[in-house]
Amino acid sequence: MISLDTILQAKDRIEKYIYKTPLEKSMYISNESTNIFFKLENQQKTRSYKIRGALSKITSLNEEERDKGIVAISSGNHGAAVSYASSLLGIGKATVYVPTTTPKTKVEKIKYYGAKVEKAGINYDETHEIGLKQIKESGMAFIDPCSDEVVISGQGTIALEILDENPNIDAILVPIGGGGIITGISIAAKSINPNIQIIGLQTAACPAMIASLKDEKFYEVYPSKESICDALIGGVGYIPYKRAKECIDDIIVVEEEDIKKAITHLVLKEKLIVEPAGAIGVGAVIKNLELFAGKNIAVVLTGGNIDEELLTSIVRGVKI
Amino acid sequence: MISLDTILQAKDRIEKYIYKTPLEKSMYISNESTNIFFKLENQQKTRSYKIRGALSKITSLNEEERDKGIVAISSGNHGAAVSYASSLLGIGKATVYVPTTTPKTKVEKIKYYGAKVEKAGINYDETHEIGLKQIKESGMAFIDPCSDEVVISGQGTIALEILDENPNIDAILVPIGGGGIITGISIAAKSINPNIQIIGLQTAACPAMIASLKDEKFYEVYPSKESICDALIGGVGYIPYKRAKECIDDIIVVEEEDIKKAITHLVLKEKLIVEPAGAIGVGAVIKNLELFAGKNIAVVLTGGNIDEELLTSIVRGVKI
Repeated sequence: MISLDTILQAKDRIEKYIYKTPLEKSMYISNESTNIFFKLENQQKTRSYKIRGALSKITSLNEEERDKGIVAISSGNHGAAVSYASSLLGIGKATVYVPTTTPKTKVEKIKYYGAKVEKAGINYDETHEIGLKQIKESGMAFIDPCSDEVVISGQGTIALEILDENPNIDAILVPIGGGGIITGISIAAKSINPNIQIIGLQTAACPAMIASLKDEKFYEVYPSKESICDALIGGVGYIPYKRAKECIDDIIVVEEEDIKKAITHLVLKEKLIVEPAGAIGVGAVIKNLELFAGKNIAVVLTGGNIDEELLTSIVRGVKI
Repeated sequence: MISLDTILQAKDRIEKYIYKTPLEKSMYISNESTNIFFKLENQQKTRSYKIRGALSKITSLNEEERDKGIVAISSGNHGAAVSYASSLLGIGKATVYVPTTTPKTKVEKIKYYGAKVEKAGINYDETHEIGLKQIKESGMAFIDPCSDEVVISGQGTIALEILDENPNIDAILVPIGGGGIITGISIAAKSINPNIQIIGLQTAACPAMIASLKDEKFYEVYPSKESICDALIGGVGYIPYKRAKECIDDIIVVEEEDIKKAITHLVLKEKLIVEPAGAIGVGAVIKNLELFAGKNIAVVLTGGNIDEELLTSIVRGVKI
């Protein structure tokens, strides 16, 4: 069961390996009555918060489990994080399964950190199926990004840092893909301050958690329209689904165009490079600032790994 | 006299106010034998290392001096840093003199942090003259960015952090404008490891320190060709000039075009926004990697405050 205790334990295990990232007030979005703070996980090691969950899980394994090795299924930030965490902790056998269609730059990055990359399946669902079969056969530990209590406890450490830095935060805005990070942050934050609001963010292209809550159904897969937010499309995790009602106070749906505007604002004004899934909260506060009038708001910028062609095309589209 | 002791004392005074910024290995520029690390002062508070020197100086003032107030003359990072440091430390009277031609965005930023902005003089030399006259009349403390022992000791704390994080660094590459930062870094680093190489970086548009060393003359002002590196043009500071021979092992001259390429590389590959003066070292290592074969090199990325039009035009110029 995830609790403040499991999150504090995760913190003890991982804090020497990660950055305590800054919580910085935005001078451009804040105004006289409203303070908008950014939690800069785009500056975290591997440029993503995912390293917290990966380290939390791997540091919790016993010697026998570590010797058998670990497996992740992800071509994105989670895959890179598991690879990096494995090297750091001296795990000899670490494998990351990715779809055969994964771009070379992503494969290179995962390999660079040390893990073996296995290409299997032409899309994430196929890769997942093949990966899970291999995990079963090999007895290696699976690092599930969204529905593992120890991983989620690791993500929850973000809330400890936010509230340590500024105990007067009234609400935390957190992107929802699988839902692991909002679950961890909410459990930590509400244990410390039961009045804090935890507000989820979903792209209009794939509001899976909203549908799950409305239909009271676990959407493990969910259809998506075209989206620049790789990390926010698809279904939700089982644990996040089960705990959503107690963890999530509200969800704001953000249009893809507003996410692009947020990326541009972050680059040109704030001098921060943030990936689309990480910039969604900035899109939400720019568009709906009146919702937060008079409050202290923390927006979690979850990662910085934006594709270079996408970034170039967004910056090129800007009128100056 | 600046020494390891004065730098350690500066560290004790300022460390609770600043970030210990990451020292990160570049996976893109490093190769099997050569490790290139970036010291990310572009992520420092106010997005520039200048806050270290400003805080070092202001925390060294006695109560009477603090009450009289402080003055800086700078429309750039130093001005913003002095403004921010003054607010942080509760200095009631802080004034920053800027030329009348200073863009509104820069004035707004300095004001945002709390200082009063005085526009005087149509260029930096005129502003300087007027500012110094006011300082003399008012008895306020002048925060000199490049030729003040206490300010330079603050900048030197960067070296303490680099060598604490990685004692095996063979050389540190540091931009030279007035020369304050390289002087501080060199004194700290060579006190800890006398074999370390300290390599300066100057834009080809204004190699003032090279000329000073060659001609054995103190060039307080120096002509500059057109340059995107605001912070690296003009003459050198007196203390940096006097100590250059013992502090600087070599200076690499970097072409403006290579600085633009470095900015692009940093944005698109490393996902870092770095201002031109801060990116010069990356231009130097990309162009001259063979000079550093087999070594561990730390490159100081001094700041992240790049003008938005300049950044947009550089990214637009990139072929993908």
